Amino acid sequence: MLSTPHGAVPTPIFSPVGSQATVKSLTPQEFFALGTKMILSNAYHLYLRPGIKVIEKLGGLHRFMSWSGPILTDSGGYQVFSLAHLREVNDDGVRFRSHIDGSEHIITPELSIEFQEALGADIIMAFDECPAYTDDYNIVQEAVARTHHWAERCLSSKQRTDQALYGIVQGGAFMELRRHSASFLTALGFAGYAIGGLSIGEPKEVTNAIVEETVALLPEDKPRYLMGVGSPEDLFAGISRGIDIFDSALPTRIARNGGFFTRYGRKIIRNAHFKDRDGPLDEGCDCYTCKNFSAAYLHHLFRCDELLAYRLATMHNLRFIMRLMEEIRTSIFNESFLSFMESFLASYQPTDEAVRLSQRQKGTKWRGKESHH
Amino acid sequence: MLSTPHGAVPTPIFSPVGSQATVKSLTPQEFFALGTKMILSNAYHLYLRPGIKVIEKLGGLHRFMSWSGPILTDSGGYQVFSLAHLREVNDDGVRFRSHIDGSEHIITPELSIEFQEALGADIIMAFDECPAYTDDYNIVQEAVARTHHWAERCLSSKQRTDQALYGIVQGGAFMELRRHSASFLTALGFAGYAIGGLSIGEPKEVTNAIVEETVALLPEDKPRYLMGVGSPEDLFAGISRGIDIFDSALPTRIARNGGFFTRYGRKIIRNAHFKDRDGPLDEGCDCYTCKNFSAAYLHHLFRCDELLAYRLATMHNLRFIMRLMEEIRTSIFNESFLSFMESFLASYQPTDEAVRLSQRQKGTKWRGKESHH
Repeated sequence: MLSTPHGAVPTPIFSPVGSQATVKSLTPQEFFALGTKMILSNAYHLYLRPGIKVIEKLGGLHRFMSWSGPILTDSGGYQVFSLAHLREVNDDGVRFRSHIDGSEHIITPELSIEFQEALGADIIMAFDECPAYTDDYNIVQEAVARTHHWAERCLSSKQRTDQALYGIVQGGAFMELRRHSASFLTALGFAGYAIGGLSIGEPKEVTNAIVEETVALLPEDKPRYLMGVGSPEDLFAGISRGIDIFDSALPTRIARNGGFFTRYGRKIIRNAHFKDRDGPLDEGCDCYTCKNFSAAYLHHLFRCDELLAYRLATMHNLRFIMRLMEEIRTSIFNESFLSFMESFLASYQPTDEAVRLSQRQKGTKWRGKESHH
Repeated sequence: MLSTPHGAVPTPIFSPVGSQATVKSLTPQEFFALGTKMILSNAYHLYLRPGIKVIEKLGGLHRFMSWSGPILTDSGGYQVFSLAHLREVNDDGVRFRSHIDGSEHIITPELSIEFQEALGADIIMAFDECPAYTDDYNIVQEAVARTHHWAERCLSSKQRTDQALYGIVQGGAFMELRRHSASFLTALGFAGYAIGGLSIGEPKEVTNAIVEETVALLPEDKPRYLMGVGSPEDLFAGISRGIDIFDSALPTRIARNGGFFTRYGRKIIRNAHFKDRDGPLDEGCDCYTCKNFSAAYLHHLFRCDELLAYRLATMHNLRFIMRLMEEIRTSIFNESFLSFMESFLASYQPTDEAVRLSQRQKGTKWRGKESHH
């Protein structure tokens, strides 16, 4: 259980992504009703649009988007390194061009904290450098050193006392760098610790091995957050290794592409055999979509590119994940987590790794894409 | 008050458009909560996608789209003449190519009724030929004659007794043809009468003059339906001349383009002065959007092309019209309609005619456009 100024958050918790102050296609009323306890938003996106000053003037992020529950904001580090153009990194910060209009900007650790304090999230993140999975040791080592230096500056520039600041462990797939990063950040003393730089294209065995070693080095009495993870199988993998917090755009992004979760695995609603399929997307699902509409209706809406399609699929996928998390928390409370995981994974067919990696690239037709965390 | 198998409908009534078995972006739960009493759907669109047989197999249109209130379906006549390609009209029916994939199809009056009986709407429409506003007298005269012939065939092919079949008066801007059409159809004896072929680009004075003359020739004890009309000023114009039923995609279509109704007229949310505007779209509006979000938030969502933008704007515009209709019905009941109309129109600035006509052409970026009725 996490305690925040906007209420308690049971753990392990999955946070839907609302990078641009909206969980795509849903109202706050809706994502709350689906079981959302905390959402993730993003300093980088909100800095570019509508601008931090606008949100500050309108009373902060909670009021701006009309969500009174807990919010976690990412620092912008990952987005600067994955979305922005023409980056120049130096020890001071990052100079980059906006992915929207090419305008030039600078973000430093101090500015990231200033932005996040103005937005007013409950949990804020240190400004980090996230290297690519394919970068070699020296580059990753340098990024880790910079991330550590910036972490110190984030801690010392922080002024608000009602926000929890989390550090982000980097180090790519290099176990030695991960260990160094975990011990360095732990020594600085953050309110929580995130594992960053994973789920960015590396094989799942690598992800799991890094998570397992890193978690063991983080303080047990602080929340441990695995950034960018959100498929059912990956949630189980993370939780079984001790992760408390997850965020991912995956459930909402695949929904907009017509992918939906069932207890047997992911399906594609556009497939022709759904054309006249009566019955819900997933038997036994308690979401609004499944209680009111047939798979055939969803198939029709997707074929017609109807706006309602994206909503109904998003509601289903988010509810699927939220309900799974509720069941996981119950199983942990009942000390039956491992048997619950086994029985779930016995019938759930994870998406093939090759398909998964190719789908990551496709994105959606919607502009204003979510970052992956 | 209209009585239908799915409940009573107070008049005058405005029906939102759900051509493809969805009122764009909204759930049935939502458009009901906004005050919707009846929706319009469309045999042409549903015949092309998902196909009449699919909807029939899934239990009819009400069940397919999960809406248990009254539905009116248009016959497909207008759509065949405004959307489809390579039309060949003869006395038997129309051969055309789908506006979606170019495939060839035929609709006859008998097929239109068969489709509408399979869909199962409460009110169904005769299959008509709708000439363009610019067509000359001889063409319109021929279209009227064919519409009359088809009206007889619709009446005689109708089998279900639980659906009300309405005739559609045509005749373009030619008063003589309108008079002829009204008296011919009235003699056939329909459950209700629509005025078609208006609101398709002609000046408003023409619309109003035709409506005024035509209404006077239709039986007072049957519902009178003006197709394709839905701006506040046009609703007043129609109601003051005796119209009972309206439908239009206008409120929902302009919403998706960022146009919204206020008591002072239509505004454009993308305008820069809304960037940091606190307060709702329209002071005093009781819709979910206005109660929960600032104009600045809507401005942000539209700038980011966020899906939630279209929903929130649609909810506002539909609620604006539904509330106006509620107030109009109350004023009629209280015998104060004319003074209510005067006071509303004293502060409401109708959209400039030139802007209105140019906006008609623009449409939206969403495929699967609504037809205008």
